Amino acid sequence: MFAEQIQNVVDKIDGSIGGLIMGLDGIAIDQYVAGGKDFDVNTIGMEFSYILTQVRKAGDILELGGMSEMVIKSEGITLLIRMLTEEYFLAILLEPNSNCGKTRFLMRLAETNLRAEL
Amino acid sequence: MFAEQIQNVVDKIDGSIGGLIMGLDGIAIDQYVAGGKDFDVNTIGMEFSYILTQVRKAGDILELGGMSEMVIKSEGITLLIRMLTEEYFLAILLEPNSNCGKTRFLMRLAETNLRAEL
Repeated sequence: MFAEQIQNVVDKIDGSIGGLIMGLDGIAIDQYVAGGKDFDVNTIGMEFSYILTQVRKAGDILELGGMSEMVIKSEGITLLIRMLTEEYFLAILLEPNSNCGKTRFLMRLAETNLRAEL
Repeated sequence: MFAEQIQNVVDKIDGSIGGLIMGLDGIAIDQYVAGGKDFDVNTIGMEFSYILTQVRKAGDILELGGMSEMVIKSEGITLLIRMLTEEYFLAILLEPNSNCGKTRFLMRLAETNLRAEL
């Protein structure tokens, strides 16, 4: 059920690699990797679930309110994260120079349905 | 010298709070807070310099290449970070719903001059 909705975002973006829904404890609920791509989406999600926990802690200390979104761009990848609940997030991985704006829009559209199932 | 360039980005964005240039060791080179705003930009930078270090470590482990940009949105703030060198980053803080796209553009424009001085 979740994989179809992740696929629904991933397959609409040129240069998208895959995505997953994961808890901040680093355990994935579901994932989808675009056809023909060989990418360990789960390991990337696990590493960044730890970082998200650190960001949340920093936000609490600094009283910045709950985190809703994070985008990280590196030479090799762009990672977009959207918190769905206090515990779960949707992460989408793109090749560099893919369309971040459209991806964020599609993630926002997917959020309502995903939240209802979490 | 750096503060003027930070100001040059901050003052062109409606709803911007301030900005700073800092090392990953959490020591700021210079900072600027928009007129009338009471915000501890330095403490926020320090907390996120630690997170940036974690992101860099994760990127190394996962072989994702050097990190270039990070955006974090929370209920209370939007934080945009751009790596200037391996060690130093430019961070700009905005109120929620400010224009991130324009801010990223101005940060990119400022990068060349800032790099030349670092």
